[in-house]
Amino acid sequence: MRIAQCLKYLTSSSARNASTISSSLQEMQNRVVEASLTLIRERARLKGECVGAAGGAKASSCLLGVPLGHNSSFLQGPAFAPPRIREAIWCGSTNSTTEAGKELADPRVLTDVGDVPIQEMRDCGIRDELLMTTISDSVKLVMNESPLRPLILGGDHSITYPVVRAVTEQLGGPVDILHFDAHPDIYHAFEGNIYSHASSFARIMEAGHARRLLQVGVRSINKEGRDQIRKFGVELFEMRKFRKDREFLENLELGVGVKGVYVSIDCDCLDPAFAPGVSHIEPGGLSFRDVMNILQNLKGDIVAGDVVEFNPQRDTVDGMTAMVAAKLVRELAAKISK
Amino acid sequence: MRIAQCLKYLTSSSARNASTISSSLQEMQNRVVEASLTLIRERARLKGECVGAAGGAKASSCLLGVPLGHNSSFLQGPAFAPPRIREAIWCGSTNSTTEAGKELADPRVLTDVGDVPIQEMRDCGIRDELLMTTISDSVKLVMNESPLRPLILGGDHSITYPVVRAVTEQLGGPVDILHFDAHPDIYHAFEGNIYSHASSFARIMEAGHARRLLQVGVRSINKEGRDQIRKFGVELFEMRKFRKDREFLENLELGVGVKGVYVSIDCDCLDPAFAPGVSHIEPGGLSFRDVMNILQNLKGDIVAGDVVEFNPQRDTVDGMTAMVAAKLVRELAAKISK
Amino acid sequence: MRIAQCLKYLTSSSARNASTISSSLQEMQNRVVEASLTLIRERARLKGECVGAAGGAKASSCLLGVPLGHNSSFLQGPAFAPPRIREAIWCGSTNSTTEAGKELADPRVLTDVGDVPIQEMRDCGIRDELLMTTISDSVKLVMNESPLRPLILGGDHSITYPVVRAVTEQLGGPVDILHFDAHPDIYHAFEGNIYSHASSFARIMEAGHARRLLQVGVRSINKEGRDQIRKFGVELFEMRKFRKDREFLENLELGVGVKGVYVSIDCDCLDPAFAPGVSHIEPGGLSFRDVMNILQNLKGDIVAGDVVEFNPQRDTVDGMTAMVAAKLVRELAAKISK
Amino acid sequence: MRIAQCLKYLTSSSARNASTISSSLQEMQNRVVEASLTLIRERARLKGECVGAAGGAKASSCLLGVPLGHNSSFLQGPAFAPPRIREAIWCGSTNSTTEAGKELADPRVLTDVGDVPIQEMRDCGIRDELLMTTISDSVKLVMNESPLRPLILGGDHSITYPVVRAVTEQLGGPVDILHFDAHPDIYHAFEGNIYSHASSFARIMEAGHARRLLQVGVRSINKEGRDQIRKFGVELFEMRKFRKDREFLENLELGVGVKGVYVSIDCDCLDPAFAPGVSHIEPGGLSFRDVMNILQNLKGDIVAGDVVEFNPQRDTVDGMTAMVAAKLVRELAAKISK
Amino acid sequence: MRIAQCLKYLTSSSARNASTISSSLQEMQNRVVEASLTLIRERARLKGECVGAAGGAKASSCLLGVPLGHNSSFLQGPAFAPPRIREAIWCGSTNSTTEAGKELADPRVLTDVGDVPIQEMRDCGIRDELLMTTISDSVKLVMNESPLRPLILGGDHSITYPVVRAVTEQLGGPVDILHFDAHPDIYHAFEGNIYSHASSFARIMEAGHARRLLQVGVRSINKEGRDQIRKFGVELFEMRKFRKDREFLENLELGVGVKGVYVSIDCDCLDPAFAPGVSHIEPGGLSFRDVMNILQNLKGDIVAGDVVEFNPQRDTVDGMTAMVAAKLVRELAAKISK
Amino acid sequence: MRIAQCLKYLTSSSARNASTISSSLQEMQNRVVEASLTLIRERARLKGECVGAAGGAKASSCLLGVPLGHNSSFLQGPAFAPPRIREAIWCGSTNSTTEAGKELADPRVLTDVGDVPIQEMRDCGIRDELLMTTISDSVKLVMNESPLRPLILGGDHSITYPVVRAVTEQLGGPVDILHFDAHPDIYHAFEGNIYSHASSFARIMEAGHARRLLQVGVRSINKEGRDQIRKFGVELFEMRKFRKDREFLENLELGVGVKGVYVSIDCDCLDPAFAPGVSHIEPGGLSFRDVMNILQNLKGDIVAGDVVEFNPQRDTVDGMTAMVAAKLVRELAAKISK
Repeated sequence: MRIAQCLKYLTSSSARNASTISSSLQEMQNRVVEASLTLIRERARLKGECVGAAGGAKASSCLLGVPLGHNSSFLQGPAFAPPRIREAIWCGSTNSTTEAGKELADPRVLTDVGDVPIQEMRDCGIRDELLMTTISDSVKLVMNESPLRPLILGGDHSITYPVVRAVTEQLGGPVDILHFDAHPDIYHAFEGNIYSHASSFARIMEAGHARRLLQVGVRSINKEGRDQIRKFGVELFEMRKFRKDREFLENLELGVGVKGVYVSIDCDCLDPAFAPGVSHIEPGGLSFRDVMNILQNLKGDIVAGDVVEFNPQRDTVDGMTAMVAAKLVRELAAKISK
Repeated sequence: MRIAQCLKYLTSSSARNASTISSSLQEMQNRVVEASLTLIRERARLKGECVGAAGGAKASSCLLGVPLGHNSSFLQGPAFAPPRIREAIWCGSTNSTTEAGKELADPRVLTDVGDVPIQEMRDCGIRDELLMTTISDSVKLVMNESPLRPLILGGDHSITYPVVRAVTEQLGGPVDILHFDAHPDIYHAFEGNIYSHASSFARIMEAGHARRLLQVGVRSINKEGRDQIRKFGVELFEMRKFRKDREFLENLELGVGVKGVYVSIDCDCLDPAFAPGVSHIEPGGLSFRDVMNILQNLKGDIVAGDVVEFNPQRDTVDGMTAMVAAKLVRELAAKISK
Repeated sequence: MRIAQCLKYLTSSSARNASTISSSLQEMQNRVVEASLTLIRERARLKGECVGAAGGAKASSCLLGVPLGHNSSFLQGPAFAPPRIREAIWCGSTNSTTEAGKELADPRVLTDVGDVPIQEMRDCGIRDELLMTTISDSVKLVMNESPLRPLILGGDHSITYPVVRAVTEQLGGPVDILHFDAHPDIYHAFEGNIYSHASSFARIMEAGHARRLLQVGVRSINKEGRDQIRKFGVELFEMRKFRKDREFLENLELGVGVKGVYVSIDCDCLDPAFAPGVSHIEPGGLSFRDVMNILQNLKGDIVAGDVVEFNPQRDTVDGMTAMVAAKLVRELAAKISK
Repeated sequence: MRIAQCLKYLTSSSARNASTISSSLQEMQNRVVEASLTLIRERARLKGECVGAAGGAKASSCLLGVPLGHNSSFLQGPAFAPPRIREAIWCGSTNSTTEAGKELADPRVLTDVGDVPIQEMRDCGIRDELLMTTISDSVKLVMNESPLRPLILGGDHSITYPVVRAVTEQLGGPVDILHFDAHPDIYHAFEGNIYSHASSFARIMEAGHARRLLQVGVRSINKEGRDQIRKFGVELFEMRKFRKDREFLENLELGVGVKGVYVSIDCDCLDPAFAPGVSHIEPGGLSFRDVMNILQNLKGDIVAGDVVEFNPQRDTVDGMTAMVAAKLVRELAAKISK
Repeated sequence: MRIAQCLKYLTSSSARNASTISSSLQEMQNRVVEASLTLIRERARLKGECVGAAGGAKASSCLLGVPLGHNSSFLQGPAFAPPRIREAIWCGSTNSTTEAGKELADPRVLTDVGDVPIQEMRDCGIRDELLMTTISDSVKLVMNESPLRPLILGGDHSITYPVVRAVTEQLGGPVDILHFDAHPDIYHAFEGNIYSHASSFARIMEAGHARRLLQVGVRSINKEGRDQIRKFGVELFEMRKFRKDREFLENLELGVGVKGVYVSIDCDCLDPAFAPGVSHIEPGGLSFRDVMNILQNLKGDIVAGDVVEFNPQRDTVDGMTAMVAAKLVRELAAKISK
Repeated sequence: MRIAQCLKYLTSSSARNASTISSSLQEMQNRVVEASLTLIRERARLKGECVGAAGGAKASSCLLGVPLGHNSSFLQGPAFAPPRIREAIWCGSTNSTTEAGKELADPRVLTDVGDVPIQEMRDCGIRDELLMTTISDSVKLVMNESPLRPLILGGDHSITYPVVRAVTEQLGGPVDILHFDAHPDIYHAFEGNIYSHASSFARIMEAGHARRLLQVGVRSINKEGRDQIRKFGVELFEMRKFRKDREFLENLELGVGVKGVYVSIDCDCLDPAFAPGVSHIEPGGLSFRDVMNILQNLKGDIVAGDVVEFNPQRDTVDGMTAMVAAKLVRELAAKISK
């Protein structure tokens, strides 16, 4: 996608005084960001009102899409994921009840405030640092409308850092993180990009946003990864030892003594047999039911979560992985809402 | 996709006084619409400023996505098209020069104000009539930033009506329309829906938005279609006679004496061999070069246009139809800009 | 597919006396049904003769295809399944021996009487009630040729009702049913259709055709489903508890004290990783081996069975699900024949 | 697919007296054939009655499917074609009017008597010669119900011989044949099979069933093919000279002085860009519109025809070639009916 | 592919004296073989030198591709596998570290001597016996460059015989073989071909190349297979009993008292859900993790191994099975090298 | 693919004296190159002998594969093309006769010397300059065996430069080049790579290897391209003017007064409808028949040619583009041989 051709043109152009242009551009960019946040605020208010009108809730999951793919090292298809996941959630081939019986059509269980307009902001020349701030601000706008709790539709895994940052800042302290993934995503930086999808958990741990970080499903990790994991005290559950860890993982209790639990699900935690539509095919992963068994039995107050790295451009023709991502979202919504 | 579950809940709910809810909902919906338009206005201003900074132009094409698919009678995949077309326009497999040598990276040739947030508005319970008005208003916001001219990325063909309405209202009079399609899209209504993608040209002709309407590539038309075409004086060019009409169509001059020319390209005007990614596969259509020959040789001032009915859910794995839709957009942009 | 265009024409036509036409049509329809049954009877006789000529058997499985898809709520592709399953059963990529060593090329193990001509009957204007009766009659024609036992190739799951009805009527009493499925298929009616593929087990239970009904693999069930299951005393084995139920299910003994066991396998009991070619993709299902372990260890006299809901239009290019459906049929045939 | 396992068993078996078995088997086979023909007769009567009830016609096309694929030298997928073509004819993505305005829902234009049960007959051990006779007999049963004219859905091209034989015998004299194909299908025999799909036109010409045979679209022909073409006086129109022949072919008049015209369309006459779902991909063929231009402008009384060699197992995921085959059938029906 | 057209021409030709031609051809064939082996020798020397330069190793895995597919009974796609597996090993979507932390970019862990030019030799008229000898000679050339150990990329399973023969001859005695497969590949001959991919283990056992042969994952075996297994004392682990055998298989120790262990992995040991890109789809197989658990826990000195029967022509569009085959190679390399 | 990991290791290693290693590596690389050329020489001799034994010829086409893809700017799949094209040439779905009747099974028409082992040389650390020289040397080895004429199977378009260089050096003077392509491939360098597939014709023209260069099918060209074309006097035939140029192009006579004609066919000259399996999808190209009409009517002595840029990783499941590339090779072989 074309990134900030305008910006290049303006800064390279001799047609006007460069500094004038630059400051006027920045001002206009700020107005675009402001308008983007206003739109999310209005939608969050409307959805919060719906929940109230339906009788209110203690906690209610609310979808927020973050169609950002450019911090991926290999393919950028996850930028197209949010609308496909939404379509699959409401697909006519299944009903709207979760496995344990929650009704998704009830706004107290699930609402949706739409997408952060990532691609349009990038096309206005807005850079990564401001993008990340805008994602954080959008998450906070959702949390402002109690009892809404953000359930993020990625996008690549780089978005988890600004989301977790917003959640912990809003709640006033760290959380425990349950992280399903084939990779630890904990490089200091990847090819020089500190916002890379392979580095989000390095940012989170550095900033102290997580008390405990449990990583489940890992099967691609190199020396730097293992060094970082030791450094940050991450609890690593590798696939090659999963048969031994299974009982422990199916009986987790997290979040007590901190602000709650954050659940981050990278679709490539699953074996590619179950989720072919991901950018990084890594055989030997979890079955869908393995993830369900861990998630459904988890004890703890889930304050927010995300489902990321679904890549529609690698999905099967009939959208099997979209259905998988959608069911992860549905069951995570059921755990959040109460 | 879930349509207005909130709305249903609110109106069916006995938890509060129904009329109170209904009016508060409507107010909130209006604020969502207003915020949506503000966002488009700000992006249009920024892009208009870019064109000026680059030296200005007499006419400059500007993309506006309208991801609306629910007025389709068969499949609703065109709602996913705009981001895929943008990706293909800037795809690394080709350069950014059009066939006749215009440079798309120059903002004087092409800019982009992003999408009208159709799906989010629908999920807020906003109904078709207000959606259509919002599309029209968005088109006008682009036209307000002279020299920007709207080049719409559909979406299904139902969007052409609100777009043409906005264009002719803004310009103050009718246009000539060159319409490429396998179907005339001129039913009075389809399955009761007057906003159906099969009825947009009935709406346009009734309202007098077009002086001449030329339909090229038609090969699926029934008795009602033929009756309507006679009634509205449409100039019909059927595929079964294309070999005879070719010379005429490759030497068109349109728009003189009216406010200019509007070009509407339904991707299914092409034979499915050239554009498999459409909802309505109708063998026996135009080749891609046939469309180019007509479009590149057209004489006239193109004031706006659209490329619609690309359905990514039926495209080939490598996105051939996305490349086709993107090239239609690129070459149409080259004709608009000057 | 065109349904009964003739019928519409005749009943709407003023060309002749309406009641005359109607009665003559009905008579012709009856003759079509009669000819269809005659054809099945002749084929069953020939195949029964083959079994005898080969030395006879106590029980011998006999395929009967029922290409009916129109009672599905979402996609109707299962109507195309029977010929694809047959092709896969005899596919050159595998041999004709079952896992425990039975030889499928021996007519004492497996014969085939072809399909009930469902689509042609529907195109003659024959309605659902008579279709269902014809399916039952066809099953009985197979059972008349002892030792043939019907092994039905669906078709959608609506066919299980007329098949079980025929089996229990012919045997003179109820059976135990082992039912593999992602869904309970036990709605009273679905979108008003009491013959829906989502209602077949409501019909069966109402009529008392089953003493016990065990449902294995269920992971999509709503409140009405749970109510019906309680009402009919169904034994429900949900996927979310499968790890606990596994030992029990791998040691079943059924059918003692009744007329035997009926096994109904909906291909969507499998996780879509194992069987992508189904209409209702529901992640988190059984593995192929899970089904084998339950089926191969089942103790009981299997009097008939079905394999349904394979949808070739959603299969992989190389027909993986066809091979899966075929192996389910092969192993079920091995359990029936003796 | 399993061919005549029963037969092998019976003839190799020592369990009974071999000649007794053999004669009883043959008798049972004859009864199966008779029942198959009875079923077609009853359906033809019902459909003929429909045409009459609708007001009658001079000529009315009537579909007859012949799902036979085993005489193909390479792939046998055409055996699965007839139900897929029917589905595409009535597909909801298009209307039921032909390009020149005939209404297919009117039984006077198109009816359907279903399929000859080829696969079931083969599985009963019935050999090719009797299969061919049964195809011919089925065609005659359709023609017996005036004004029905057979429009055959293949199946591979081997079926054209028994169909043309039946048509000319029933009419009492030869026809002119317009044959669209990439290949001449005129080998004396192919790999020893005189009923091969590559030999059907050798059989037809030997028997004198055609006065003139025009072959259009040919681009794969070897020395034997050219020798046979000279021997039988075939009028060959090769693709490499199509630009020169086009005018002639778009102005054909055939069938005067004989019993009429037979049109045989092998889907591989089309370039694989237009019809990828064929067994024999041969680049450089006709466009869909080329075929339409020849067919729609043909003058002559078309007494019967076929559309063959569509192979659903090689079609695109969304069934583009099914739509192509269906439109060939639709437009051919429009030419037949009057 | 064209096999030895030249040979046919020469031997059938009367243009020269036949015996002269024949002997001159044979001499030229021998020179082609000699040049092929020279090329492998030179590459092995260069790679051996690299290992030494990097510090040397006790054992170092070295890839050798054998693109041979013509001994398959069904599809011949495995001939295209080696370059696809190499591409997947180094695919940018994953890193170059194995699950237990070995670094594949280190030549002490993995080098590659390219392919035996099988197809070119066949096109020169070289027959199977000489091909098999050339494969054996190529394996020995790799083993000559200590510490290189051959890790073969198939090709179909017929290549395991000449590879194991070379390994045991070079080492001077038999090995233990751990063989993962859906089939026992132990027919005496298949359709008369003693070099068939279904017969390789019959050849190996006859020749005494293996002390123990353990077959894991088998689920397609007929009477001849069971007879051969008894005759040769094979240890058979069938899928239908895998739940009971799992503990035993995850704690194997092999190769003590003989020359070491050979590991042969047929990709169809995996369930087709995990490895769809194989010629013989056989549902009910191992998961990828099952294979890992057995392989990673195996104790023994692995002297050589192979990964065979990956068929790229049946893989998913994004090459999932290529990634699976590549990871099998990567993890097997990690076990070999030390 | 891993490129020269060994090389990196050796040059970065401190284990030995760097210059010693470097010179010993270079010597080993030279021996690998020499062995590669020896193998091609031996195969060319054998095939030349076959042609002679079959009666000899004036000119005889001989395939040489060059599986090189790394000079592509976007995708590198063409490295996998040669074996797939060969498979398609001899595919059982078509016969071995060309459109005008030449018999490909006759070695006087077509032989094959296999592939230059590009990937293995790169993995030995051999750099582009030596690779290019080795390609040129291989071409000369084929030409040494009169009457063999090289018909190259690419690979990406970068290989045309070393091939044309070898051809003109061997013949002692320039040729005329007929070049089919969507792009002019005439950048001075692409992203700094002077051997890029986008620069091959700049190299050829600089060196004076072509008297005339005709480029047909071009539809993607930017300002630098147009400047280079003017500079080198290239005759450019753009698609947007093809209808006017068609007659001229279908009556070409080339090569008189120079050493003959070289024909280079980039598969992307075709519209993607006809050849989807290419890296650079560019709608609006030639039909397959357009290319045939130009090629089959070309007058001139074709001394060599190539078919490049077929990318199997983007082909349809059934290999349609492989068949297209194969037919281009077949018909080009027919033009070369005499």
